[in-house]
Amino acid sequence: MSDLAIARSVKLQPIAAIAERLGVAADQLEPYGRYAAKLPLAFSAPESSRQGKLILVSAMTPTPAGEGKTTVTIGLTDALNRIGRQAVAVLREPSLGPVFGLKGGATGGGRSQVAPMDMINLHFTGDFAAVTAAHNLLAAIVDNALHQRRNPGGIDLTSVRWKRVLDTNDRALRQIIVGLGGRANGLPREAGFDITAASEVMAAMCLCDSLHHLKEKLGGIFVALTHDKQPLYARDFKANGAMAALLKDAIKPNLVQTLEGSPALIHLGPFANIAQGTNSIIATRTGLHLSEYVVTEAGFGFDLGGEKFLHIKCRTAGLSPAVVVVVATVRGLKYQGGAALETLSTPDMAALERGFGNLEKHLENVRQFGLEPVVAINRFTSDTAEEMAWIQARCAALHVAAAVSETWAHGGAGAEALAHEVLAAVGRSTSSWQPLYDLTDSIERKIETVATRVYGAGEVQWFPRARRDLRLIAELGLEQLPVCIAKTQKSFSDDPTRLGRPTGFTLTIREIEIAAGAGFVIPIAGDLVRMPGLPAVPASERIDIDAEGNIIGLS
Amino acid sequence: MSDLAIARSVKLQPIAAIAERLGVAADQLEPYGRYAAKLPLAFSAPESSRQGKLILVSAMTPTPAGEGKTTVTIGLTDALNRIGRQAVAVLREPSLGPVFGLKGGATGGGRSQVAPMDMINLHFTGDFAAVTAAHNLLAAIVDNALHQRRNPGGIDLTSVRWKRVLDTNDRALRQIIVGLGGRANGLPREAGFDITAASEVMAAMCLCDSLHHLKEKLGGIFVALTHDKQPLYARDFKANGAMAALLKDAIKPNLVQTLEGSPALIHLGPFANIAQGTNSIIATRTGLHLSEYVVTEAGFGFDLGGEKFLHIKCRTAGLSPAVVVVVATVRGLKYQGGAALETLSTPDMAALERGFGNLEKHLENVRQFGLEPVVAINRFTSDTAEEMAWIQARCAALHVAAAVSETWAHGGAGAEALAHEVLAAVGRSTSSWQPLYDLTDSIERKIETVATRVYGAGEVQWFPRARRDLRLIAELGLEQLPVCIAKTQKSFSDDPTRLGRPTGFTLTIREIEIAAGAGFVIPIAGDLVRMPGLPAVPASERIDIDAEGNIIGLS
Repeated sequence: MSDLAIARSVKLQPIAAIAERLGVAADQLEPYGRYAAKLPLAFSAPESSRQGKLILVSAMTPTPAGEGKTTVTIGLTDALNRIGRQAVAVLREPSLGPVFGLKGGATGGGRSQVAPMDMINLHFTGDFAAVTAAHNLLAAIVDNALHQRRNPGGIDLTSVRWKRVLDTNDRALRQIIVGLGGRANGLPREAGFDITAASEVMAAMCLCDSLHHLKEKLGGIFVALTHDKQPLYARDFKANGAMAALLKDAIKPNLVQTLEGSPALIHLGPFANIAQGTNSIIATRTGLHLSEYVVTEAGFGFDLGGEKFLHIKCRTAGLSPAVVVVVATVRGLKYQGGAALETLSTPDMAALERGFGNLEKHLENVRQFGLEPVVAINRFTSDTAEEMAWIQARCAALHVAAAVSETWAHGGAGAEALAHEVLAAVGRSTSSWQPLYDLTDSIERKIETVATRVYGAGEVQWFPRARRDLRLIAELGLEQLPVCIAKTQKSFSDDPTRLGRPTGFTLTIREIEIAAGAGFVIPIAGDLVRMPGLPAVPASERIDIDAEGNIIGLS
Repeated sequence: MSDLAIARSVKLQPIAAIAERLGVAADQLEPYGRYAAKLPLAFSAPESSRQGKLILVSAMTPTPAGEGKTTVTIGLTDALNRIGRQAVAVLREPSLGPVFGLKGGATGGGRSQVAPMDMINLHFTGDFAAVTAAHNLLAAIVDNALHQRRNPGGIDLTSVRWKRVLDTNDRALRQIIVGLGGRANGLPREAGFDITAASEVMAAMCLCDSLHHLKEKLGGIFVALTHDKQPLYARDFKANGAMAALLKDAIKPNLVQTLEGSPALIHLGPFANIAQGTNSIIATRTGLHLSEYVVTEAGFGFDLGGEKFLHIKCRTAGLSPAVVVVVATVRGLKYQGGAALETLSTPDMAALERGFGNLEKHLENVRQFGLEPVVAINRFTSDTAEEMAWIQARCAALHVAAAVSETWAHGGAGAEALAHEVLAAVGRSTSSWQPLYDLTDSIERKIETVATRVYGAGEVQWFPRARRDLRLIAELGLEQLPVCIAKTQKSFSDDPTRLGRPTGFTLTIREIEIAAGAGFVIPIAGDLVRMPGLPAVPASERIDIDAEGNIIGLS
């Protein structure tokens, strides 16, 4: 059965019944259809008395299909609820880019899914659309100011850094020229689109804790320089009030359910390679306020989503995970060991051994932050008992707890062993995470720290553009911001073909984007671009809808 | 009190109570928040036994602020309900472009509004975002096919006619070059964005009667030519299934309420100057199925929205209005008579007399279609009794019923006189509308017919590009389609400065866009562009949100 068929075979509970499990009354919900609702912001106040335990699900370096992090997150939540604890999953919203591109949706798989999967994967409650609209409103206002010659202080049009966004994988929009066709169409200049998941508005939403705070953050978006090299921010264009108005609903977290009826909060969705990779502080705090355990995930490997979850989100919000689950698969380890994608279902102990160094480095990274990892071996039907046993033995040798997770096939029942290991680790956990860099370090030092200590690089190379960006950051007084490095998810290095555990490599920083409103800078490593393209055969070719309105081919 | 303050002072009924007035049970609704819901498609089947009466609200040539058509539509609906009839308003959804640009929202004004006005004006239920996503998915698929050299039959990249859309007034995107930056970013080519209200996907949605029909229409979107001059449609790119999947909810009409508790269906929103200007056939049929009277509007003057409502929507759906309400204002007549915008509140009988010809021509146009007009004089506080009486006398001389409408100040109570005039006209109405052109006429003939008979042009001038487009339309076998002329709303002519009742002018057709999927062609008259720009001081500068989430400055 396909994920969609499984999802459809389950009778969902009315959303009010799910809310009741969290102690939220029906009249506090804003329903979106019968099975989803927005929660008010009231539950996300940082001073909330009740504080649940935070469990972060991260992963080894993933294969193109991913290691099943969302599936494990959902299954672990269901398992915790099955064994008598109270848990909520706190996830990111899917982007339409991967849904129609290569990777597919982001609602888990098999028996471990959040539902309604077609609704969540297609528009959901409109949050991505609101981010897109708010982001592009600022772009239109900036180009309008240029056109009307009404720009504050005289904008240098070659300095405009604010791009546009679309929630579509559309490589042709990466680098464009706008304003052609004569005076009536504005001023010609170089511009471009990123994907909405990389929008600074998305990041500001994820890192704010109230509407007031959001408006302030949006006002601080760095847009351009004047001819006199003075910075212009969104507030100088009087844009942030209208932008925040567009985000009035998107700021509220969305409540849905797992196929087993556990509550799940799904809110916003930055990617972890090109953005900070975790859901909103508001959703996480809401979960911690309403539930004993929050199981949340950060995108791609621990080098990307995990590092950013700690250095950016947890530092901003004053949060600390009690334990980090690192998802690994036999397939992923073999792939990191050099086995071809087509052969990953074939037993190959040599490739498994060669690839283990990748997982080992991720586990060392978790421990560098002062946190305790638990390995979740996400089992595929082709995996052998010998392969499973070998991984468990290797983890034991590292004194890392490990459990096989069979959530895809068995839902929460398939993650009970993992749940017990996680609870044991939570019980052992005594201290908070420790940052690897201080905010007072220079931007260069911060990047070098992450590159060498987390990625395993030997050195960092700076392109001339990156050097200029460093100077600008210093001139703008933004050196105290954390760094959100954009890097391929396919390797610890900036070269997607270097698998396993590369060491001593050179990490190249091409340029550094400034996200002063969100509250970080974005060093861009290697060739990475912040607008994906579609593959040769996009998933959209398989996606359809029948005359009764049933979606077909979504995965 | 501002419109927003008035809207907020009214206690709304739960949406289930509004649905009950239409005989729709609560479990047939998909709620969006507490005061809006989507209705199932079931009520829109054309074979529906019950058939209400259709009342079309149109207008004279509007001032930049509009003549209050939506306000009259809402007030008339409330009035019909007040005097014991059962009526529903069927409206278009607002676009974010005018909301943040010049014109403002589209939820009526004063005591005649649909609510919640902030929700409806900002994203509403996500329909515009879904249209944007579906439209741009096809664009990304087409550029991806070019990039992957996997294009069906070899696309001639200079022939690609499919643009992108955003629901933002953003002139800088009208004419752009995409695909710059080298091989990885696709192939460089000229491209552009229209506003979402002008999207062919929006039009296909408005003119379809089922999901199956929609998918078929989307498949028929003309995208480009091969090097061998063969047409390529969306279905050749296997795009229409995924596009329809994105539109699964947007195809369903939205139910809200007026401030007096009348039901209102609001669905989709093409502009009438650059698109066909009326809501969906699905929403209109749903209204006619569920209610005794449907009061609906078509955008801008009768020359634009009215003509298209009949020739495109009514012809496609087999509908006929029983009566056409033509909204006129003292201010609008003076403006058409040459009075400056700033002086419209000052009594000026001479300007009023000079401007009356504009209204007279619209009334003649209604009669050309075999329909009976009723004039609604939408009263502003500055209008004098003498001005009112003079207009009523002139209408009487033309044997046209007229009534003063004070819906802004008094809601439904201010439109009771108008409601009685409308009911009397419905009672007199015996026959259906008659088209001015046949579908078997050539495209040139159709354009000339509308230009000379509806606009009052002396002749039509064809730019070379338009001549080439006519040949292409013939080669594609699309000559049987109706025409959806894009023309300024500010004048009967294609020159926005020619007010009043211009005659004998030359209408220039610059080019003709092909909307084969929607089912019409779009001759573009004069300088009109299908992507508006922001004014010198955009409305967005006044729009804000307070810490409690209340929107400020929306109008």
